[in-house]
Parts: sequence; C-alpha cells; structure tokens
Amino acid sequence: MTVLTYRPAAGDYVWTFGGTAPAARVAPGTVLELFTEDCFAGRVRGTGDLVSRVIEFPFVNPQTGPFHVEGAEPGDTLAVHFVSIEPARDWAASTTVPLFGALTSTHLTATLQEPLPEVVWIWELDRGKRVCRFAARFGDFTVDLPMDPMHGTVGVAPANLEVRSALVPDAHGGNMDTPEMRAGVTCYLGVNVPGALLSLGDGHARQGEGETCGVAVECAMDTVVIVDLVKGVPCPWPRLESDTHLMTTGSARPLEDAFRIAQVELVRWLRSDLGLDVLDGYQLVSQAVEAPLANVVDTNYTSVAKIRKDWLPGGTPMGGIHEMLREQAAAYLATR
Amino acid sequence: MTVLTYRPAAGDYVWTFGGTAPAARVAPGTVLELFTEDCFAGRVRGTGDLVSRVIEFPFVNPQTGPFHVEGAEPGDTLAVHFVSIEPARDWAASTTVPLFGALTSTHLTATLQEPLPEVVWIWELDRGKRVCRFAARFGDFTVDLPMDPMHGTVGVAPANLEVRSALVPDAHGGNMDTPEMRAGVTCYLGVNVPGALLSLGDGHARQGEGETCGVAVECAMDTVVIVDLVKGVPCPWPRLESDTHLMTTGSARPLEDAFRIAQVELVRWLRSDLGLDVLDGYQLVSQAVEAPLANVVDTNYTSVAKIRKDWLPGGTPMGGIHEMLREQAAAYLATR
Amino acid sequence: MTVLTYRPAAGDYVWTFGGTAPAARVAPGTVLELFTEDCFAGRVRGTGDLVSRVIEFPFVNPQTGPFHVEGAEPGDTLAVHFVSIEPARDWAASTTVPLFGALTSTHLTATLQEPLPEVVWIWELDRGKRVCRFAARFGDFTVDLPMDPMHGTVGVAPANLEVRSALVPDAHGGNMDTPEMRAGVTCYLGVNVPGALLSLGDGHARQGEGETCGVAVECAMDTVVIVDLVKGVPCPWPRLESDTHLMTTGSARPLEDAFRIAQVELVRWLRSDLGLDVLDGYQLVSQAVEAPLANVVDTNYTSVAKIRKDWLPGGTPMGGIHEMLREQAAAYLATR
Amino acid sequence: MTVLTYRPAAGDYVWTFGGTAPAARVAPGTVLELFTEDCFAGRVRGTGDLVSRVIEFPFVNPQTGPFHVEGAEPGDTLAVHFVSIEPARDWAASTTVPLFGALTSTHLTATLQEPLPEVVWIWELDRGKRVCRFAARFGDFTVDLPMDPMHGTVGVAPANLEVRSALVPDAHGGNMDTPEMRAGVTCYLGVNVPGALLSLGDGHARQGEGETCGVAVECAMDTVVIVDLVKGVPCPWPRLESDTHLMTTGSARPLEDAFRIAQVELVRWLRSDLGLDVLDGYQLVSQAVEAPLANVVDTNYTSVAKIRKDWLPGGTPMGGIHEMLREQAAAYLATR
Repeated sequence: MTVLTYRPAAGDYVWTFGGTAPAARVAPGTVLELFTEDCFAGRVRGTGDLVSRVIEFPFVNPQTGPFHVEGAEPGDTLAVHFVSIEPARDWAASTTVPLFGALTSTHLTATLQEPLPEVVWIWELDRGKRVCRFAARFGDFTVDLPMDPMHGTVGVAPANLEVRSALVPDAHGGNMDTPEMRAGVTCYLGVNVPGALLSLGDGHARQGEGETCGVAVECAMDTVVIVDLVKGVPCPWPRLESDTHLMTTGSARPLEDAFRIAQVELVRWLRSDLGLDVLDGYQLVSQAVEAPLANVVDTNYTSVAKIRKDWLPGGTPMGGIHEMLREQAAAYLATR
Repeated sequence: MTVLTYRPAAGDYVWTFGGTAPAARVAPGTVLELFTEDCFAGRVRGTGDLVSRVIEFPFVNPQTGPFHVEGAEPGDTLAVHFVSIEPARDWAASTTVPLFGALTSTHLTATLQEPLPEVVWIWELDRGKRVCRFAARFGDFTVDLPMDPMHGTVGVAPANLEVRSALVPDAHGGNMDTPEMRAGVTCYLGVNVPGALLSLGDGHARQGEGETCGVAVECAMDTVVIVDLVKGVPCPWPRLESDTHLMTTGSARPLEDAFRIAQVELVRWLRSDLGLDVLDGYQLVSQAVEAPLANVVDTNYTSVAKIRKDWLPGGTPMGGIHEMLREQAAAYLATR
Repeated sequence: MTVLTYRPAAGDYVWTFGGTAPAARVAPGTVLELFTEDCFAGRVRGTGDLVSRVIEFPFVNPQTGPFHVEGAEPGDTLAVHFVSIEPARDWAASTTVPLFGALTSTHLTATLQEPLPEVVWIWELDRGKRVCRFAARFGDFTVDLPMDPMHGTVGVAPANLEVRSALVPDAHGGNMDTPEMRAGVTCYLGVNVPGALLSLGDGHARQGEGETCGVAVECAMDTVVIVDLVKGVPCPWPRLESDTHLMTTGSARPLEDAFRIAQVELVRWLRSDLGLDVLDGYQLVSQAVEAPLANVVDTNYTSVAKIRKDWLPGGTPMGGIHEMLREQAAAYLATR
Repeated sequence: MTVLTYRPAAGDYVWTFGGTAPAARVAPGTVLELFTEDCFAGRVRGTGDLVSRVIEFPFVNPQTGPFHVEGAEPGDTLAVHFVSIEPARDWAASTTVPLFGALTSTHLTATLQEPLPEVVWIWELDRGKRVCRFAARFGDFTVDLPMDPMHGTVGVAPANLEVRSALVPDAHGGNMDTPEMRAGVTCYLGVNVPGALLSLGDGHARQGEGETCGVAVECAMDTVVIVDLVKGVPCPWPRLESDTHLMTTGSARPLEDAFRIAQVELVRWLRSDLGLDVLDGYQLVSQAVEAPLANVVDTNYTSVAKIRKDWLPGGTPMGGIHEMLREQAAAYLATR
C-alpha cells in the first residue's frame, strides 16, 4: 500500500480545476493523506473577519492538489474513496456574504435591493463529542449539532479545454457541496484529461441540504482518500457510492435541470450496470429515490439522486470497485 | 369527541379547490373518517388501462370534501392532524403519462420530440407486512419497498377569488405531493374564505422524493383526520409539524423559487414563534435543514424545509396545537 | 353590423376569468364599444396614492365583461379583433409595488431583503400629439415617449373548471401584458367553456418589453373590438395576427419555458395552417423569428414569437378571419 | 491609423477565451482586418455533412485571436467597434444538433426521450442583393430573408483565473449570439487580465431572436474592427452602443436571471453615466426598453436590454468613445 502525505504550503494551494501543474503523480491504489484549508484560506478567524475585508477574490476556496493519477485517460472513471475526513481545528467559521446565498438577490439573480448585512459566526467544534456548537449572534441561544464532516469541493480537470474556478460545480465535479461526500463513500469522476488531475478542499464540519446561506460550517480538514481507476468506463456526471446507496449528481440552473440530470443519470446507471430497463428504472426510481439537495447557491445548483442498493437488482456497479476500496481502507486504518 | 364519517358516492367527488358547496359543516375538533379515491378515480386497474384511454380530463385527482370548518375566517390557520392513512385496497397503480413527468418534455417544457411510451405498473400492497411490491414490466425483477402511506393532495379554497384544479399545488396547499404528509403529522393551512373548505385525496402507498415520473404508487385510502383552528394566526404557505420536526413548504417554478419560499418561511417561523433573530435563523437553518423535494412535476414544483425541533429554542409553535391534537388522536385511537 | 356599447358601473367589474355570470350575450360578428378602467380601479390619481394604501386586494385589475359569445364551444377559437384602443383620460399612473416586479425579490422569488421604496409616477398623456410624458420624481428630467395603446389583459374562462385571478396569464390568455395587443391586431383564444366568456382590461398607454417594474403606463381606455368565432379549430395558447405578422404566446415559469411554448406553437401553426414541415419550420423560425418579451413579472412570464407573413408559404391562417375582420373594422370606422 | 490584417491558418484558431498566447499585440486605436471561420470550422459544406460526423468536440466554434491590447488592465473597459462584417462565402450552413437547441431536451435539460433528427440546411447568400435564401428540405418552399451579418461570439479572457469554451456566454462576453452585434455597433467588455485578450468568431449571415434551434445561418466572415480602451471604467457585463441605442446584456440561467442582469445593468448605466436616479431609471426603463432575446440555447442564455438614446438625459456614455470610433471608422472606410 503506497501512502503519500501532502500538506500544502501557503503558496501551494490551487484555485481552479484544470490549468495548473500536478502537485504529485500517483499510481492507482495510492493512499493520500491530505490537509485541506477552509474555504476562506484560514482568514476568517473571528466575528470581525468579514469576507469583504479579509478575502481578495479570486483567492477563495483553496484546493489541495492536483494529483496526476497515472494511466488515467479520457473515457475512464476516477474512483476517490474517502477513508476519513477529520476537522483539523477545534473551531469553524460561517458567514453571510453580500449578494451570495439562496435568500438574497445575487450577482446572477440581480435586483435593485440592498444586500443583507455581513455577519460572521464562529462555531466551536468538540471533536471528542462529535458536535458543532452554534451560538446566536443576536441573542443567547446555543445548540450542539452533530458533526458530520464532508468535502464541499472534489473534482478533476474539466473537459472542453476549460479551466474552472474552484467555486463552480459542473460535470467535472468541483464545488458540489453535497453532505453525502463523507467518509466511507466512493466518488466517481469522469476523466477528461490524461492523469485526471484530482483536487479537493472546502471541508465542512456539517452542512444543511441546499447550503442555504451559501456558507457551511467551514473548517480545515485532515483527510485520507484512496484513488483508483475504472478503465474504459465513462462517467458523464459525478456519482457516489456508499455501502448502502448509489447516488448520482447533476449541477445546473435552474434547479429542476440539476434534478433532471441526476435522475436521468440514475436511471441510466441502473440500466447499464444492473440491467434494469429504462422505463422500469424510471418507475422504480420514481417511488424509491431520495433527492437530497446539495447546494442552491453556487454558480450551478447541485441535486443528488440516491437509492438503496438492497432495493435494486443484483450486480456490481462500476465493476465492484467500491467494495474493494472499502477493504483497502480497512487495511489502511488497521495499520494506523 | 365528534366523529363524522364520509364516504363519497361516485358523483360526490370534487375536482377543484374552491368553487363547490361544502360536503359538510364541522366544528373545530371534529374527527373526520374519510375514504379517498385514487388519482385515477379508480379507473386504472390493470396494465391495459392507459390513462389516455380511461381518463377524461379534467376528471382526474378526485378530492373528498370540501369541509366547511365553523368559525374559520381569513387570517386564521386551519390545523389538519393526520391520525391514520391506510390503503383501502391490496393493490395500487402507477403509470407514465404522455408529456407529464420530470424526465420528459411536457406541455409547459415544450419540445418537438415524441412523448415517451405510456406504460402502467400495478403494485401489490401487502398491508400486513406493510410493503408495496414492484414488478418490472420489461424483465422479471421484483422488489418489496416499505409502505409509507401519505396524501399527495390536501388543501383549502384559494385566495384571490380563485378556483384551482386539484392538480395544482400553491399557497392554498393542493397537490403538493410531499411524502411528509403522513400519519402523525399536523398540516397547517392559511384560511382564505369563511369555513376554509378543506378537501383531500390523492393517496400514495409510497412515493420517491420529487415524484419523478409524476405518478406515485396511487391508491384509495381510509384516512382519519382531526381538524382544528388556530385563530388569528396567518399561515402564508402550508406548514407541517411532526413530533420531531417543523416543516415549511413552497410551491413555485423554477424549483429554486420553491426552495427559497420554503426556506424563508422556515426562518420567519423560527422568528415569529421561537424568537430567533432572522440572521441567526438564516445561519442555523443553513447548517441544520433537510430539504426533501416533494414534486418536480406538477404545475408548480414543491420544496420542503425541515428542521429538528430539539435543535431549536424552546417555544410552542402555532400555540402548541400539534401536541394537543396528538393527544386527541391517541384518545380517538384508544376507542376504536 | 350589431354594435353593443358597454360602460360598466362601479360594481360591474369582474376580477377573475371564469366564475362570474356574463355581462351580456352577443352574436359572433358583434362590435363591442367598451370602457375599461385602469389596473388600479382608478384609485391611483396622484403621487401620494400608494397602492399599499389605496388598493384592497384582491380588487385589482378590474375587467370589463365577461361576454358570452353565442355558439362558442370548447374546441372552437374565439377571434377578438381590436378596432381601436384610445386612452380615456389625459393622464396615466405607474408605480413600484412592494415585492412585485422583475428587479426586486417577490413573494415567489423570496429573499430576506427589504423591499424597494414605493413610488408613484403620474404620466401626462397628450392624445393629440400621441405622446406620454415621463417626469422624474428625483430630478427634473422629462421626456415624451410615443403613445402606443394596448391591453395588458385579454382572456376567456379557463379550462379544467378553474377560475383565475385577472393578474394571471396562462393558456386562457389573461394578464399577458404584451405590447403587441394593439389596435389592428386579432387575438385568438381557445374556447374552454360554452360562450367563451371574454373579458378585457388593463389598458396601457405604452409599455416596455418585459414590463420590468411590473406596472406599465396604466390608464382607462375606450376600446372597440369585434368578436367572432373560428368553429372547430382549437387554439392551445393565445395567438395574435396583424396585417404583417403571425404571433404566438406562451406563459410559464421559468422564462425559457414561456419561450419554448411560444416557439413550439409557432412551428406547429406554420405546419397546420401553411403546410410547412416541422423541421423546416424549426429552421425557418430559428432564423426569422422575433421574440419580444411581454412580461417577466406576473404569476407566469409571457414570451411572444413573431414572424413576418411575407416570409411564409401562402395560406390562410385561421381560415382568413383576420382579413375579414379588418374589412368589418374599416366599415365600422367609416360609419362613426 | 494602424491597420493589422490577420487571417488565421488552420492551426491558428483558438477554442477558448483565456488560456492561449496572443496572436498579436496591438495598440489602442488599431484597426483589425480579420477573417473568421464559421462555427463548424468550415466542415459543414453540404446536407450530408452532419455535425455528429464531421466535427470532433471540443473543436467547434473557432475564434480569431486573441489580441493583446496594450495598456489594458483589470478595471478598464475594452471598446470593440465593428466597422464592417461581410460574409466571406456565397453560402452558409445551419443544422439541428442532437440534444442541442431550445425545442429539444438537451444534456442540461435532460429527458429520457429520443433526440430530434439531424438535418442540415445550406443557405445561398446573395451578397449583391443582401439576401439569404432558405430552401426547405422537406418540401419545395424557398424564401429570401434580408442579410443582417453579425458575430455570435465576441469576448475577452474571463476573470477568476478561468478559461471558458468558445461555446459559453458569460460576463466576459463569448458566445452571446445577439443579432445586435452588427456593423456600426461598439461592444464594451470589462478587462479581466492584462491585455484583455480579445477574440471573435461565429459569424451569422442572419439569426432569429433566441437562436431557437441553436444554430444560425453560419458563415465565415471578413470583419473589420477598431479596438480601443476606456481606462479606469469597469464594465461588469458586456454592453453595446449604436448611433441610436444603448444596450446591456446578461447571460445566465434561468432566462429570467439573464433578463434581470441586463435590466439592472441598464438602470445602473443610466445612473452612472447619465445621472438618472435608480428608481426613476427603473420606471423609465420599464416603459421604454426593448428586450430582444439573444440566445435561449447556449450554456447560459443571453438577454439584451435596449433603449433609445434620444429618450435619455444628455450625457456621454463611456466618455463618448462610440462617437469617436464612428469617426475613425468613417475615415478608415474612406481610404479603402
């Protein structure tokens, strides 16, 4: 088992998918032990650190990577198994951002109204008790919510010669902001360029579905992933697999288009890998699917379609690579 | 405890919210024991019963009601507590409908393409085992999914002098198609006309989130509700309360507008009934909310915002009527 | 030539399409000389008359009608030819309305922001010079814009047993707010109920495309129309015909759905009435169509597809009724 | 007057905005005499040349450039004045493209339906008579439409370190596909990177509003532009100025967001350059604006807001550079 440990120095972060040289070249099967900074590049540390003052665009949402996976070619699928995602600090930050978020007009949903006030919340993380503590800014209410660490941003270099900001979710993955991207899950990403060029970042100690204000409980993460390849199998939009569920994603606007993409992709996956007829799949998905929203705030909105594996015909989605990676993860964890 | 039992005769169903005389007048606190037909008016009984042949529009989605609730006036909120929702038959039906559903062009998302084929699935319901059996039409796969009965359509007469088809979800409720409308839940509906004029129907033995093909596992239901009033409290969009969660809904297009309405309504509810500041509520909801889609197929799409009560400041939403109705429901069930 | 003159008394206006008894029964071919109030029911007369103070919802956008057209049955098309549309006063009013309009959040595109200020503009109309004078409220700029009178709202009783507010545009017509609804044009509306039940109102001395703030240069009108029937020809969405153009409309959200409906309807009209193949029509429309937006503010947004008749194959759209009505209009005008 | 003539060799075209070295460095005020290939890179020459066969993605929509304009820095505005746009051949091509266009499901508006058939139309261009001849493929109808040459794609390198496909319209310009981009117009583009990096292409002999099928009357062009700079003046979204109109654009999905951007930008332009109060501008625009759709088919949809200059307060938008460039264009044309 090859293990690569990588903690970027301040100048090592990347701010895009595509367009930068690899941080490292790794063979399929490599374990990556990574540090990821929070989306503010660590600059929002107190309630006085307003994003409009401490962040200089476009240097927001730093990514750790990219990793060139040897042998990855367009038409293949990259499998990224999340072994563990652990908050690297005992606090996290969230904030309103002027003209960003679902419950305000934005630069794209433009109005003549004034922006909402800019307010920062600092969340205490109790990593022993696995909770995140919310404290109201305009009252004395506090509450502990379960910690549920995840990565908002995971992706590869885009197709069509493009380079995309790390704030964008699209067919290459990127800033999908789905709480389903947690430890134990394998994320499948279609390869667009040789080496795939995987990066990830934007850790959230937890996040609601839709990421309503546009900012989650943002924190730096110590994350371990295993990367692998499914050769010769394309993956038009990012997919996820857990021990219990198959999941597809779509990222688009309006939100119903994101929903449609994820649902069509799920019907097609059930056909290609499990042999279910398209119309039978349409019917089964209609009655069995969960549709947890990921984000309704980013450049594209992201919708997830999620179905229980034990409700599906037998088969080995993506060639059974998730089970294999689960075993490797267990082996890795046993050696720590 | 006053109990009214009402099983409509064939000609008694209504097809709209508003526009018809009440089936009965009832006092707040009345238990209604109701029969509701399926959305096909019971006409789809086998795989040969195509909707395009057996249904004559607009006679689709029959509703049981309306009930005039004495004392209900504009500005009040009607509380409808679902005591029980039980399939009235041992089968249910689903189907594709030409130019209806999320994964096809429609009369509103119009294209020049051909419609998908029209196919009917008959689901077996095992009410003892509480499962719905799916059988593929184009293969021999079968699977049992958990029964989770719900009403797709619950509403009152609309505001603005309107009469709306029972296929429409909007601020008056109607065809919201959310799986959250299950037994144990209280549904709050703002009153627009004297007597409120409550109707319900469209029972589903179960449904996926989003109701992808536009048709759930449709079946007739034996349903018991208790109706009550929250005087002097408005409810701009339908809300739901369970023992564990507060939920708000929004119905609009595009889907992000439905999402925005539900989320804004939740932030406002936390402010009005639990005293949480708007920006603090925005932050807490952003990290704590679940956003299960209801439908992405009807005239308006419906999004739900759902938050755990034990994560909220103490208080008695809607004056604590849900707890009171839970007790009445228990008393009623004890006498059966 | 039968002429009916109708000036509603204060209590005679209607506020919905459908749901009210006819004001009069008229034979096809009848000339209707009508008075229509402005959308404020005449209550906004000065800059101090804020809508939030002087209007009591839902009593906004009063309609003149409905007229039962003898012989009109579902499946027919009602033809409404606009002979003349003349401002009935020498002033008109416009205003911002809190949480209504394209450049503000609204009740449907909900945000947590404050509404824009409520401001009224009174426009002077010079009916001799055919101009509308704008005077800035926050500066001394004035400008004369050409008068181009039109009706924002024209429709019939809806299908599906519905009654719709006069603020709604949909397949039955209603509040489409297109500047194309001017004198010289014939408007085609599919008949949904016996007698069709035509109403109209919401005169605008002029309006920009999209009706950005949601309110045009609103004024009472003296309007003359001739009503007629095209028997046995359906009209799924409202269409317009001028001496030079065929036009179709679609009303839906999001706006691209309104665009799609109008464009599909135009391709289909060219096929059914002028024999152009669907794909050839798709190509010709793609290169030849104008797509003037009507409104991007109402319950549904309205898009118009407009093509020059002299670029089309020969034929008689809608049986040539527009030409016939033009001749009748000329005959009527000659007698005044 | 400095003139640069540039006719790219086959390998010289670029397929993105950003991400490539400049073809040339030019001083502000330079006249560029350019050749642009059609969007098919000249490969669709007959009705048998289906895009799915002759085009290899992503090599579609070739651009001529980029040009580094000396002195251009972020925060400045690039002015591109179109002196002339002339078809370089006596034919042009259009086509349906599988799963692309407004009247079909697409990769983003995904359904389970079959795509429409792929059909090519070859248009004859009569450059003397200034007409484009449509010939039906499935019938014998032909018609001559006025030639109205324009560029679908004009843009600079994007902000945020991005590189975008030439198929994308966004704040950097790109594939906006507006028929307003014709000779005599000045296009304003905000500068995001030193030198701006202007490219253009995608000539259309003519195009309908919305570009319904996604493909216009596509042809190679001989085009002359003059480039210049407005130092220290930002331009958040592309703007256009003709002798008679000011125009703003927005590119986003859903289409109402594109509309909102363009309209907000116009209100803001009237405030910043002509001193009109925001609410007065909102009112005047609401009654005076034209809103011709550009495209409802690309990755983002593009809406234009257009207002007559003689209806506006006096002033010199963008410092009066359009008038200056018009004089230079006249001087250039006089010397040819």
